Amino acid sequence: MKLQAQEHPNLILTNTGVEKIRKELGNVPLLDASLEKIKNEVDAEIALGIDTPIPKDYSGGYTHDRHKSNMVVLQQAGVLYQILDDEKYAKYVKDMLMQYEALYKTLPLHPKTRSYARGKLFWQCLNDSNWLVYVSQAYDCIYNYLSEAERNKLETNLFRPFADHISVDSPQFYQRVHNHSTWGNAAVGMIGLVMNDQELIDRALYGIKGVNLDTNAKDDDGGFLNKDGKAGFLANIEEPFSPDGYYNEGPYYQRYAMYPFLIFAEGLHNVKPELKIFEYKDGVLLKSINALLNLSDADGEFFPLNDGQKGMSYYNSALVTAVDISYYFGEQEQGLLTIAKEQGEVLLDDSGLAVALGVKNGIAKPFSKKSINLSDGPNGKQGGVAILRNENIELVFKYASQGSSHGHYDKLSYSLYEKGDEIIQDYGLARFVNIEQKGGGNYLKENKTWAKQTIAHNTITQNGTSHFGGKYEIGSKHHSELHYYDDAYPKIQIVSALEKNAYPGTEMHRTMALIKDESFTKPFLLDIMKLKSNNENQYDFPYYFMGQVLQSNFDYESPTALSTLGKDNGYQHLYIEGKGKASSNNTKFSWLGNNKFYSLTVTTNNEDELFFTRLGANDPEFNLRRDAALMIRRKNSKNTIFASTIEPHGNYSPVTESATNSKSSIKEIKVILDTDAYTVISITTINDNIKLFITANTNSSKEAKHTLKINDKNYTWTGSYYFK
Amino acid sequence: MKLQAQEHPNLILTNTGVEKIRKELGNVPLLDASLEKIKNEVDAEIALGIDTPIPKDYSGGYTHDRHKSNMVVLQQAGVLYQILDDEKYAKYVKDMLMQYEALYKTLPLHPKTRSYARGKLFWQCLNDSNWLVYVSQAYDCIYNYLSEAERNKLETNLFRPFADHISVDSPQFYQRVHNHSTWGNAAVGMIGLVMNDQELIDRALYGIKGVNLDTNAKDDDGGFLNKDGKAGFLANIEEPFSPDGYYNEGPYYQRYAMYPFLIFAEGLHNVKPELKIFEYKDGVLLKSINALLNLSDADGEFFPLNDGQKGMSYYNSALVTAVDISYYFGEQEQGLLTIAKEQGEVLLDDSGLAVALGVKNGIAKPFSKKSINLSDGPNGKQGGVAILRNENIELVFKYASQGSSHGHYDKLSYSLYEKGDEIIQDYGLARFVNIEQKGGGNYLKENKTWAKQTIAHNTITQNGTSHFGGKYEIGSKHHSELHYYDDAYPKIQIVSALEKNAYPGTEMHRTMALIKDESFTKPFLLDIMKLKSNNENQYDFPYYFMGQVLQSNFDYESPTALSTLGKDNGYQHLYIEGKGKASSNNTKFSWLGNNKFYSLTVTTNNEDELFFTRLGANDPEFNLRRDAALMIRRKNSKNTIFASTIEPHGNYSPVTESATNSKSSIKEIKVILDTDAYTVISITTINDNIKLFITANTNSSKEAKHTLKINDKNYTWTGSYYFK
Repeated sequence: MKLQAQEHPNLILTNTGVEKIRKELGNVPLLDASLEKIKNEVDAEIALGIDTPIPKDYSGGYTHDRHKSNMVVLQQAGVLYQILDDEKYAKYVKDMLMQYEALYKTLPLHPKTRSYARGKLFWQCLNDSNWLVYVSQAYDCIYNYLSEAERNKLETNLFRPFADHISVDSPQFYQRVHNHSTWGNAAVGMIGLVMNDQELIDRALYGIKGVNLDTNAKDDDGGFLNKDGKAGFLANIEEPFSPDGYYNEGPYYQRYAMYPFLIFAEGLHNVKPELKIFEYKDGVLLKSINALLNLSDADGEFFPLNDGQKGMSYYNSALVTAVDISYYFGEQEQGLLTIAKEQGEVLLDDSGLAVALGVKNGIAKPFSKKSINLSDGPNGKQGGVAILRNENIELVFKYASQGSSHGHYDKLSYSLYEKGDEIIQDYGLARFVNIEQKGGGNYLKENKTWAKQTIAHNTITQNGTSHFGGKYEIGSKHHSELHYYDDAYPKIQIVSALEKNAYPGTEMHRTMALIKDESFTKPFLLDIMKLKSNNENQYDFPYYFMGQVLQSNFDYESPTALSTLGKDNGYQHLYIEGKGKASSNNTKFSWLGNNKFYSLTVTTNNEDELFFTRLGANDPEFNLRRDAALMIRRKNSKNTIFASTIEPHGNYSPVTESATNSKSSIKEIKVILDTDAYTVISITTINDNIKLFITANTNSSKEAKHTLKINDKNYTWTGSYYFK
Repeated sequence: MKLQAQEHPNLILTNTGVEKIRKELGNVPLLDASLEKIKNEVDAEIALGIDTPIPKDYSGGYTHDRHKSNMVVLQQAGVLYQILDDEKYAKYVKDMLMQYEALYKTLPLHPKTRSYARGKLFWQCLNDSNWLVYVSQAYDCIYNYLSEAERNKLETNLFRPFADHISVDSPQFYQRVHNHSTWGNAAVGMIGLVMNDQELIDRALYGIKGVNLDTNAKDDDGGFLNKDGKAGFLANIEEPFSPDGYYNEGPYYQRYAMYPFLIFAEGLHNVKPELKIFEYKDGVLLKSINALLNLSDADGEFFPLNDGQKGMSYYNSALVTAVDISYYFGEQEQGLLTIAKEQGEVLLDDSGLAVALGVKNGIAKPFSKKSINLSDGPNGKQGGVAILRNENIELVFKYASQGSSHGHYDKLSYSLYEKGDEIIQDYGLARFVNIEQKGGGNYLKENKTWAKQTIAHNTITQNGTSHFGGKYEIGSKHHSELHYYDDAYPKIQIVSALEKNAYPGTEMHRTMALIKDESFTKPFLLDIMKLKSNNENQYDFPYYFMGQVLQSNFDYESPTALSTLGKDNGYQHLYIEGKGKASSNNTKFSWLGNNKFYSLTVTTNNEDELFFTRLGANDPEFNLRRDAALMIRRKNSKNTIFASTIEPHGNYSPVTESATNSKSSIKEIKVILDTDAYTVISITTINDNIKLFITANTNSSKEAKHTLKINDKNYTWTGSYYFK
């Protein structure tokens, strides 16, 4: 179903855009540098010669890596042909495409069988789709360089069957709301746009006509294949993004999905402007870029919510695309130019040109990240993720929905950072992406047995079982609820949320605040975890601190031989390095991490057990890091509260060997009052200043007026909380 | 005994030097920046007011830190008075000195009793000496600002009794060859130079007249107090420095001792030029600076030989002194200017001015570190330390003497670095210097039970006991011997040494080479550990690799509960995380550290046991890091050989998620021949290239001609080794 003839290139590059770029060559440093870099890479590849090996390997193996790098080189060579008008690049693209044409028509399914949807060039359709997203751009760039016969040959033997394989032949992969499908949709849609094939474009936008999957079937990762029967690119925008632009799988997968979302959207914008894709769902694609950038630490590394590999950052090339597109199609936010400068490259298209010109013209401003609350769920009604920021301290608080198949069972969990260093870590995933020696670079079984389990996270595990029994079907039905979020007052950034479904019959209510107070050198975290239950339970509450133990105020036994904390649900991976009991109303613990000092103070009673745990048991392949935690175990409790502070306070220099401000400023914290309506915490500093924090557990609106009598004194305030 | 009147300042600053600096003010960026920095610091201190608290604390406590910071501020304020000619600084110094005068004459011994030589301001004479080294400079700067009566008061009640306390009253501290004594000598000598007191100067240079210590007595660290009866500054230059400038305790303590050595030397040069102190012992003080700079990794961090805290680097202020003095009193080596630039400051004296001018004039060149072999021992006859450097790989090989009381029992041990990251680590010390929470910031008991033990190091432990039975008295009598060292051929850097005394009846002969070969992307380490013994022994041979296990080619059991590898000699601190047997002639093991890939290939037999160990057992205070090792155990062996290669090869980016060159290039290594005269190793690459390495075990001179028949082929070469 061919539509009427079009100009080429028209997908990402356009004829007028190419004209503009050519005019500016040599005058815009960031553009020139990006061009130079790509030119060097492509020239080196051309010199090496073309290799399109017969597919054989998993990720990390030669054939996988070769086809992966070919797709990028093809896309780049196409761009170089357009911008430099040098036929050698067009010829290179054509020669390689013809080699692929010859190869592809002979290919059976990829020999590796692990995927639920095997590709042909790669072991999974996902990677085949990656390939087509890049290669369709290359094809567009040399479209007019090819004869019609050549185009027919490619389209008939390579592109069309390729698009069919990843879609109609692999509906379990294609016909879903999932990042995998987004790649599939974009691949089919982009080649459809270049081939001007309405059927493919429709298949991309709306899914395969008439195909409905079993709504109970699951994929490799344990996620539902297609619970709601929705499919296609638009559904993939509709469903996983909240109105704030939060992507339900978390930033690591958002980064991965970002490229097909944005590059296909750019193509749609250019070829089908009438779709107004960047205005779709209230402009959520552009909002999502802002959300993603805000889901990174001070070093630009994404918070490893759910399955996220640490170290992934906005220096990833997908974020070059995101930043440039956000700037050009959005509101030319000057902070983005600073990130672009740090990225050191721009797209070689209209958006990249605009960014490079902005940087050249010196209008970049710092990209300032503030506290932000991002709702989750298609309508923003399924909890969310709050990032509290106060000076150099960042808190990531998760009260979201399950997060699809990449979600972890970690309701109301958090992680804490100082200047990009982890103070209290989230483990992230158990995987070494693309490192073949580690399970082919794929998810390791410890991802399920450890990383997803509740005990791997900084939240409550009740009776040794994970939230929702660790069951995806149940977890997917629920989400936590925001109680309140308030970032209005710079000295106190605060969020409060409830979880009522993780353990039926138990309600968890967590309030977390980053407070800057004159008695403290740095902002500290106040954490109130309030539990209500119909039954007596055992509550385990770990702190995955990063660093070396300095001091604690309780006695503990140190076993000479290490045994595990439990048998299942993640506990089988934890050794007990120390076991003791709380010896006072406040358990204190301090550590040194990244040459900075930290202190925990937590309210405990003398029945509370304390464990030093060490990860790594039942891990014969050494897939897990040997990380530590301090864990509080409170048994036989119905309603209870864990109130704690974590103070970052000072630093150590191994060069001057000086330890500055190495001690906690807190003498005592106390739960003064804890009712259905209010929880009141007092914090006494070492200088005997007493601070009072009150949170409203029920009527928490910003306008609510409260009066509360504590020790014969009346406290009156308006809003969700009181602190003085 | 006052000598005739002198000009002041004359110790570090001189009148003519001050004139020159004043003239250049505002014109020499590095000098101006250094002055500005000091001025800001001192002005802030002046604003805070003077505090000279009654001594009370250990290191890390307030009174300790306050007196420590006072001494620096006094010295700086003195310099500011001279350079800026602003009386407010002189008055500040005078006021504080008078406060110290009033305090000091009331002081008993410091209340903390842990030191073998208690100070008065500080818990140990060592810190009192630090104080006087700095404060004598301040006194010199304001000498002429004070009236004679004021000077008399200070000298009579403060300086003279202060100098006496750390010397005649504390001979166990002062009358030694030890870095502690060097500080004591310098303190007494510098105040002597300012006071123009020949008795103090002589006491500094030659020790306390007529005092001889028990040659068998020991200090807190287990070192002999004074085995040879030598004392005084000159003896402290004579003894610990080898002719190459290697300091026998290692770079960490050399850095600590450097400041008193050099600053007192500069004072002697200025006041007593006839002593020609910088020419003493063939100019060893200046040579020692070059040695020290070479004992640092690519980041400028010192190799943690013996008791050395990791992270100490040439950014330490003692090294600002060292670099400036080396430049000015040495041969104006332009590479030093680059280090000075990185340090970002210079001394405010003639030497600092010269360096700042050099930097200003743009004559700085990169400081290039090459392979270097540093002899140990006063006459360079007690083994040594070799640093092999090949591209970005650095090997630190220790075949030195015991290293005084800070020495470890680690003959023929090594550590390996890539661009400043550890590949195979040396543990360093078990101490958190100046972090009060960790044993007052002092040595922890695990320093003896773990860090000093042989099993904590990358060398052979025989029958589960440390070298010399872990006995300092025995270790101090012996040293390893250089067999040969050759850095002439850039592609192969090599060192070979013998140890005959660590285990009586056993001879260890280790040959280590960093080899760059076209079959490998990076230089690799070839390591031949050859053992000859009269008895059957158990040899334990660990690799303290840094990073995450990727792959191994042997089967092992992973215990669910962890038990220790042994009961004593450091073994009690190691858990067994895995235990197996070598399953082929080559045991292969690979790991990922700092996002770089490494592979070990080592010759094994099928009786060899293999252990994955994890540090941290019997460590109730969490004083030890949880570091890993792979250990080979060969039992019932007399003569045997461990031949291995460690290949750095490739890297991983968590941003692009690409793993480059992640596999070993070696198919097999073999010991082809091993006789008293020769050891021959073949290395077969995955492309079936065969490399042959031959080392001459006896006649290893550079001129020796060798012919050796292997498999009917004759190999002929000249020199210590053959490689092709």
